[in-house]
Amino acid sequence: MNLREQAFAIFHAAIDAVKPEALIRQHLTLQDERLFFRGREILDLQAFERIYLVGAGKASAFMARALEALLGERISGGLVIVKYGHSAPCRRITIREAGHPLPDENGLNAAEALLSLTGQAGGKDLVICLISGGGSALLEKLPGSEAPGGGITLEDLQETFRRLLECGATIEEMNALRKHLSLVKGGRLAAAIAPARCLTLAISDVIGDPPETIASGPTAPDPTTFADAWDAVRKYQLEDRLPAPVTGYLQKGLRGEAPETLKPGDPVFEKVENIILGNNLAALNAAREVAESLGYPTLILSSRIRGEAREAARVIAAIVQEILAGGRPLPRPACLLFGGETTVTVRGGGKGGRNQEFALAALNELKSIRAPHILLSCGSDGGDGPTDAAGAFIDPEIYRAAEALDLDSRAYLQDNDAYHFFEQAGGLVKTGPTGTNVMDIGIALVP
Amino acid sequence: MNLREQAFAIFHAAIDAVKPEALIRQHLTLQDERLFFRGREILDLQAFERIYLVGAGKASAFMARALEALLGERISGGLVIVKYGHSAPCRRITIREAGHPLPDENGLNAAEALLSLTGQAGGKDLVICLISGGGSALLEKLPGSEAPGGGITLEDLQETFRRLLECGATIEEMNALRKHLSLVKGGRLAAAIAPARCLTLAISDVIGDPPETIASGPTAPDPTTFADAWDAVRKYQLEDRLPAPVTGYLQKGLRGEAPETLKPGDPVFEKVENIILGNNLAALNAAREVAESLGYPTLILSSRIRGEAREAARVIAAIVQEILAGGRPLPRPACLLFGGETTVTVRGGGKGGRNQEFALAALNELKSIRAPHILLSCGSDGGDGPTDAAGAFIDPEIYRAAEALDLDSRAYLQDNDAYHFFEQAGGLVKTGPTGTNVMDIGIALVP
Repeated sequence: MNLREQAFAIFHAAIDAVKPEALIRQHLTLQDERLFFRGREILDLQAFERIYLVGAGKASAFMARALEALLGERISGGLVIVKYGHSAPCRRITIREAGHPLPDENGLNAAEALLSLTGQAGGKDLVICLISGGGSALLEKLPGSEAPGGGITLEDLQETFRRLLECGATIEEMNALRKHLSLVKGGRLAAAIAPARCLTLAISDVIGDPPETIASGPTAPDPTTFADAWDAVRKYQLEDRLPAPVTGYLQKGLRGEAPETLKPGDPVFEKVENIILGNNLAALNAAREVAESLGYPTLILSSRIRGEAREAARVIAAIVQEILAGGRPLPRPACLLFGGETTVTVRGGGKGGRNQEFALAALNELKSIRAPHILLSCGSDGGDGPTDAAGAFIDPEIYRAAEALDLDSRAYLQDNDAYHFFEQAGGLVKTGPTGTNVMDIGIALVP
Repeated sequence: MNLREQAFAIFHAAIDAVKPEALIRQHLTLQDERLFFRGREILDLQAFERIYLVGAGKASAFMARALEALLGERISGGLVIVKYGHSAPCRRITIREAGHPLPDENGLNAAEALLSLTGQAGGKDLVICLISGGGSALLEKLPGSEAPGGGITLEDLQETFRRLLECGATIEEMNALRKHLSLVKGGRLAAAIAPARCLTLAISDVIGDPPETIASGPTAPDPTTFADAWDAVRKYQLEDRLPAPVTGYLQKGLRGEAPETLKPGDPVFEKVENIILGNNLAALNAAREVAESLGYPTLILSSRIRGEAREAARVIAAIVQEILAGGRPLPRPACLLFGGETTVTVRGGGKGGRNQEFALAALNELKSIRAPHILLSCGSDGGDGPTDAAGAFIDPEIYRAAEALDLDSRAYLQDNDAYHFFEQAGGLVKTGPTGTNVMDIGIALVP
């Protein structure tokens, strides 16, 4: 295998390890009706009369299909909401498609149907929730017409988050608001499932895997309150600039007239278990195995890389340079793995995604180096911004191609136009949708 | 020792190892009139009639004093230019003080005197050049009145670089211009020293230690040309906006009527050796020794960290979190070392420096963690921006103090006001000038 083939073998091993079927096959086992997660017994299925499967997220149909294969006729029924085009045929579970990243009417209707199903589950039943990235938009129930002055609409919600984004609100602030403008997030799904037992299996697409953040934590306790949500509104002076139903509902919540999310310690959670089935680290660990089998001592730097893509890339490039120059932080041959999710502050008018931008910024740092090396950054879901690429890779061959074409890499980066740079120089990685999402995977090889 | 004491012990070991006296004492030895650098013979002093010491840079007086201690009466004389207040008493070498970071008349006069001294050195003589950070501003000779239309003034130079900075010119572009608007940089000092032998000993304050960049490479070949310098002017459309003597001189250079810098392969360099006496990595290596003696397995991430301080901090924080969460990239107890020089894009009106800003941005990522850890980032020269601090450190005690004082760390960061944040919460590191500069030192300890 040449260096590129090695990098792609490592990348594909990382993705394959976190596909829903692989995760369920590898980590969940059934023995005498007892369900084990990584060898630990988590449930005795004989204790339950009926087992329902519900869920929401881009990978959740594939999760449902794999769980159907495991549990077979023990499943009484179920409903899972996925993004348009992300279905997988199931026999006992209804798959409903809906809008993502913006929720739509189909999603609201599917969520109603899902909640009516969980309403059927009684004290002797089990509800398994299959959660994955995108679940927050796909599983939504808005505070409805029972609110005085009419309910919150999808447009109200969209307008609210658009304004918060403009103000530079933090992800924590956005999440506090998101949960308090919904009737299904922040542990509310767990409440709807009670008195049945609830087992949530999640593929995490957020840094650190906090269950209260994955898909806005439908079955996890929420430490934030209406007061936190309102603090964010006041901090950005949005009291008079958000849609009236939104501010009206939040103020109702402040007065205790709208239901709080479920707090840590709530008795509902005594019958709930949230399990992280797969995450970025699982992908990195699989990548490490293959890298080491190819003869590369491997360092997993972090599965929590975040921040502005072009700046994070400079730090990673600085580490690659250090390996090339002096065998630090590990001697050659070396493999460096990193994961997480960076962001891009768009200033130009070009086309790209955070991974392509990361790769282009790293190229600016490394392009004078002729010694063999390769650096790849790709979304594990096969997507990267509004492009058909998953990300990009860079190596000296790309540097030479860009030089021969007289491409000004700094100008492309300035214009957020990494896609068109790599389209010409080579380096785009196209996988198509992978059916899973554990954020982004970064690989550097220095032979 | 508690955790803070350990971090400071490691930090001080890093600084002490790259002080001029320590570097010269450790790496240069004299045996039977032969000079050795790290055990390798570099010169037989008996071959020379006279030995002159010249130099420029903030640490160069201390370098001169240490070299005087080593070579004693073999030194015929010398002249070293340092920043105001950075003198060290020497017996055989004249120390002249001058302006930094902006060159001044004293500097120009001292450089004239230095060049007149090197002019005395003949084919049987040795000139030792002592170069350190700041040398570029301290050792300057401007294209003078012999240029038609009058010479370039200090004000012209200042105006030129102010405009380039505004346009976001890269460091490479600035360096090409800097060398081509000077009669001493880009190998020209080596030409002035010829036909004498030239040995340059440098303490590097730039990433990767390229001799052509340290102090603008007075004794190193310069791969850039007048054409590169002019390309930068055209790229930012500054042809009509720079002082006329500057553009006039550059165009003269383009026509071959002003002298080019010395290029790689120039015969002058046959009698020149550039040696890096100390650098960031030397400091990190010394830090590692102490960290390991304190029981911390240690990873040197890179000595080349650069980019926007607040974003680089998020990557480092992501690695610290990964150590805390799962013992990657190395198991606890762990010490992470990193060095380099970040930058700050000033948007607010506060007070701070790149190291304090780095620490504050890292605090935003880590402040919810109560498990023991400490992160420190400081300038090795004891300075950080226009403050009296070298940098700052963060640990859970600082997080609690900031909380108790209700300090909004994100607002302080937004305002580039890290100094006033840490002044209240604790965390400022004040060392006073250390007498050396190998960029910045970062240390994270997770017990």
